[in-house]
Amino acid sequence: VTLTTQQYTLGSLILMVSYGACFAFILFFMMNSQNLAPRYRLVPILSAVVMASAGLSLLQEFNLWKDSYAFVDGAYRPLAENETFTNAFRYGNWTITVPILLTQLAIAMGLKQSDIQRRSLRMAVPGVLMIWAGLYGQFGEVGDFSHLNLWGVVSTIFFLWLILEVRQTLISGINNTPDILKPWPSNLWWFFLATWGLYPLAYALPQLGATGDIVVARQAIYSVADIFSKLVFGIILTRFVLRRSSYEG
Amino acid sequence: VTLTTQQYTLGSLILMVSYGACFAFILFFMMNSQNLAPRYRLVPILSAVVMASAGLSLLQEFNLWKDSYAFVDGAYRPLAENETFTNAFRYGNWTITVPILLTQLAIAMGLKQSDIQRRSLRMAVPGVLMIWAGLYGQFGEVGDFSHLNLWGVVSTIFFLWLILEVRQTLISGINNTPDILKPWPSNLWWFFLATWGLYPLAYALPQLGATGDIVVARQAIYSVADIFSKLVFGIILTRFVLRRSSYEG
Ligand SMILES: CC1=C(/C=C/C(C)=C/C=C/C(C)=C/C=O)C(C)(C)CCC1
Ligand SMILES: CC1=C(/C=C/C(C)=C/C=C/C(C)=C/C=O)C(C)(C)CCC1
Repeated sequence: VTLTTQQYTLGSLILMVSYGACFAFILFFMMNSQNLAPRYRLVPILSAVVMASAGLSLLQEFNLWKDSYAFVDGAYRPLAENETFTNAFRYGNWTITVPILLTQLAIAMGLKQSDIQRRSLRMAVPGVLMIWAGLYGQFGEVGDFSHLNLWGVVSTIFFLWLILEVRQTLISGINNTPDILKPWPSNLWWFFLATWGLYPLAYALPQLGATGDIVVARQAIYSVADIFSKLVFGIILTRFVLRRSSYEG
Repeated sequence: VTLTTQQYTLGSLILMVSYGACFAFILFFMMNSQNLAPRYRLVPILSAVVMASAGLSLLQEFNLWKDSYAFVDGAYRPLAENETFTNAFRYGNWTITVPILLTQLAIAMGLKQSDIQRRSLRMAVPGVLMIWAGLYGQFGEVGDFSHLNLWGVVSTIFFLWLILEVRQTLISGINNTPDILKPWPSNLWWFFLATWGLYPLAYALPQLGATGDIVVARQAIYSVADIFSKLVFGIILTRFVLRRSSYEG
């Protein structure tokens, strides 16, 4: 797909802002881990790890974006036919970050050590299967939407399974949560659905047409979803465990 | 070997995820060293060092991968005949990381200071010889499998020697380990065999044929082995010494 100068610039801007935000917030999470009860310290530490790994993959996407287009005859044209630009790095990165994000959730809910392990594993399995099904579907992206859709459906089934497991985790979390903080887990539930739910939209988007606007809109949706499901999620969980630490003494 | 777009993308994806994970987990290990008894602090610190050095070498492999292929006529073709892409950076990196990993093991087993030195040295010697034999064998990779195999066998002899030394270390470790943690050293033993055992598989793989799938599968095996033998190994040892710290007071 050929992009106008505006579209091209907007795309690189979105990617730059995303990786910049990720790298910058490493510091935020590292500094915050000091003020917590030891059992919750891992929550911001893991957010710092997520930020570093997401920042690196978004930096790769940014470089790939620049390398995939050349300015010829007043527009940015893909250097190779069949799109060398790919979102695959994002999917690779999610393979690491999704299990970490879900583990953070189990830790923040204040579950027992053995429950944390069991619950994290039960969430990580459908999470990783969902991503790999989507990654495999992505590869067939060019031209053939039936491949994209078939694997999108497979991935969505894993997503539904994941949603049930996350719900389970939050429900067992509510019981251990000090009364005054009880609304947090259910707010987290809606936050989770709203932010993770954006990814399938971006995945399905190319079917609306092979235009520059759609290419850029896809980057925008993926990036907004990334910032909310990783960075804002990390901030919320860190504040939650800060409160927990002070109520639980 | 010429690669399809999928194979090429998958290869760079595997390398990107590996170096991203290594760099990201530097933070994890750094932050975790604070919560340990002083004698065990070196365990996560050394893991941070391993992550940094492995991340850099995998980043080199990633760049080399991108530089070694060009997209021509709908496929990714090696720029120079006889493969410019090489796994040699991995072997160079192992020369640093293998002795460190083995030292971590000796420290985590709670041996006396003098035993730590003696045991680390006795493990490092066959470890380094094993890697250099393999590196030398790799250089003859193209075309001539008899060179690859000869040095593979030499390397395997050193590997068997190393395995005996590691067993010795774990056995002396079990005696110093608090009863409740006694299963850990023997689980570590199986973990060690399963993860280090993957490397010779990747080494031998090209003999199955010069296809794109094999080139990618080799990267996948090396990378899975790297993540488990360094990163997951580091997490396990860190958790082990965290428990030890709290039981030993
Ligand atoms: C349902 C569905 C998908 C869901 C993806 C999700 C939910 C990804 C979440 C990623 C996160 C949270 C990353 C954070 O690091 C895919 C794979 C796009 C494929 C289409 C169907
Ligand atoms: C037996 C054998 C090998 C074993 C390699 C191993 C066991 C490498 C371990 C590396 C690690 C653990 C690196 C971590 O940083 C080689 C050299 C492939 C050559 C073929 C025979």
